[in-house]
This record gives sequence, structure tokens and C-alpha cells, in this order.
Amino acid sequence: MKILGLDPGFGTFGYGVIEVFGNKLCHVAHGAIITEKDEPIQSRLKSLYEQIKKIVQSHSPDEVAVEQLFFYKNVTTAIAVGEARGVSLLAVVELDIPIFEYTPHVVKKAVTGSGKASKGDVQKWVTLLLGLKEKPRPDDAADALAIAICHAHRRMFERRFEQ
Amino acid sequence: MKILGLDPGFGTFGYGVIEVFGNKLCHVAHGAIITEKDEPIQSRLKSLYEQIKKIVQSHSPDEVAVEQLFFYKNVTTAIAVGEARGVSLLAVVELDIPIFEYTPHVVKKAVTGSGKASKGDVQKWVTLLLGLKEKPRPDDAADALAIAICHAHRRMFERRFEQ
Repeated sequence: MKILGLDPGFGTFGYGVIEVFGNKLCHVAHGAIITEKDEPIQSRLKSLYEQIKKIVQSHSPDEVAVEQLFFYKNVTTAIAVGEARGVSLLAVVELDIPIFEYTPHVVKKAVTGSGKASKGDVQKWVTLLLGLKEKPRPDDAADALAIAICHAHRRMFERRFEQ
Repeated sequence: MKILGLDPGFGTFGYGVIEVFGNKLCHVAHGAIITEKDEPIQSRLKSLYEQIKKIVQSHSPDEVAVEQLFFYKNVTTAIAVGEARGVSLLAVVELDIPIFEYTPHVVKKAVTGSGKASKGDVQKWVTLLLGLKEKPRPDDAADALAIAICHAHRRMFERRFEQ
């Protein structure tokens, strides 16, 4: 099973692809979509939507996991991140791929064992669990891989209890 | 010139179409797109995107005016409204129609003469300026018409100073 994790952001939008073989997690790809701050919002949304669509089409994930957002310090940022999240979910839905949402707390707990883990801890665990030589960059891509791992753990857990 | 005004919201998304003939404003249509709260967010975003696209295609506006959002009491609501706003702007951009953004303050000032006008005042002025028999319903549609009127006033003002 191939899983695409998405970490929505407006300036930098992280993504990470992993594959699950039995109890093993394999890293496939990761990266970030960067949209230019000088560009008008319309062009940035269109570019983000098209790039997410290309990533989904080229990796053909079976399922997509995305961060569920509840809290932002700044409401203007929250609206901008919501806009980015909206067009990215639309791109996934249009390709008929199921989406699963996880709160940051659940993602941290699934990856490190603690819902209060620091950003650094999550990145260390992502590197370890995927057997990578170094921490995935940028941070948004590492976070997207963490979201994908969280969903993979759920699927692996469910399989254990299948009849 | 035909103008489509959009008032982004997640549960209820208002729209209003007006036409400008010289110094006269004419009402063309208004309404609201309602998405079901029980539906998963993905289906709601897809439905909203498709309905906005249909409205744009059926009315063929020359320009679209949309509210610029800065403030929301609740951050979760801000993210949801951002998502709705993101997919609606995408629908407009994909049809190559220019988008103009206005803050609520500017919209109120353009319609009523005061940036501090109440919601009720704005609705009264919208009814009056478009020569309607009664207040447009729901409120979100009246707000969308106000945004369209705001943009129309800008265009009418610019025309006065054309060489």
C-alpha cells in the first residue's frame, strides 16, 4: 500500500510518499512545493493545485493522509493555510483517492509514542523509521512523511485484528 | 460589464451578479451555495468548486470581486472558510476571469458611505442601489451583491478619469 502524506502550508507545502510492505515501511519520495510570495494568490493557488495533482498522478498513492488543522497563532495565516489545504484536497478528491485526517497530537503519538514530542523528536523518528541516512528536508517534507507514517501505523494495526 | 461578487463561507457561500450600464447598476442574480454539514469535507469542497464553476460559466462575468478575509473569531472557522475560499478562487482562475479583493471595511464604505455601517445598513443600500423590491436573501447573497457593487463603483470611478 502506498501512502501520500500532506502537510498543508501556503509558502511551503510539504509532501511525503511511503510504501507499506507487511510490517515494513519504505521511503519513496518527499519534497515541498514552494509558491512565490510576490505572486498573486490566484496564481499561487492554481500552481499548488496543479503540482499536487501531478504528485498524486505520478506516485498513484492508494490513500492520502493530511494534517487536520485546529490551531494557528495568526488568523490571516489560518485563512491562507486553509486556502492551500482546500485546493490540495480538491486535487486529491478529483482523482478519487480516499483522504484521512489526523491531528498533530495523533501524528506525534503515532510516530514517537508521545503526543507531546518536539518537532526535532518527530524528525528523528521519521529518519529512523524509514531507515534514512539523514533528516528529510525541508521540515515540511519531514512532517508530511510523519503524517504518512501515522496513517501506515493505523492500517498496520487494523490488519492485525482482521478476521 | 458583468460582475460576480463572492462572499466565501463554508456552510453557506453567497454569490451575486450585477451588470453595469454607464452609471446604472442592474441586478442579474443572487443566491447561496449550501453544503451539508454531515458530508465529509472533501465532498463539500468538490461540490462547492463545481457549483462555483457552473455559476461562473452560466453568467460569464467579466470580473469577479471577492471579500478579503483578515479576521475571524474562531481559528477553526477561519481554516474552513479559507478552504472554501481557496477552491472558489481556483474555479474562477481556471476560467481565466480576473479577481479583485476588497476588505469588509472598503465594501461597507463603497456601498453605504461609511466603513462602520451595520450589516442591516449594507443590506438596505444593496436593495436601494439595485432597485429591488425586497432585501436579497439569504444575508450571504446580499453581502455578495455588496461586494459586486463595491467593485462596480471602483470601475465607474476609474472611467471618469480615463483620458
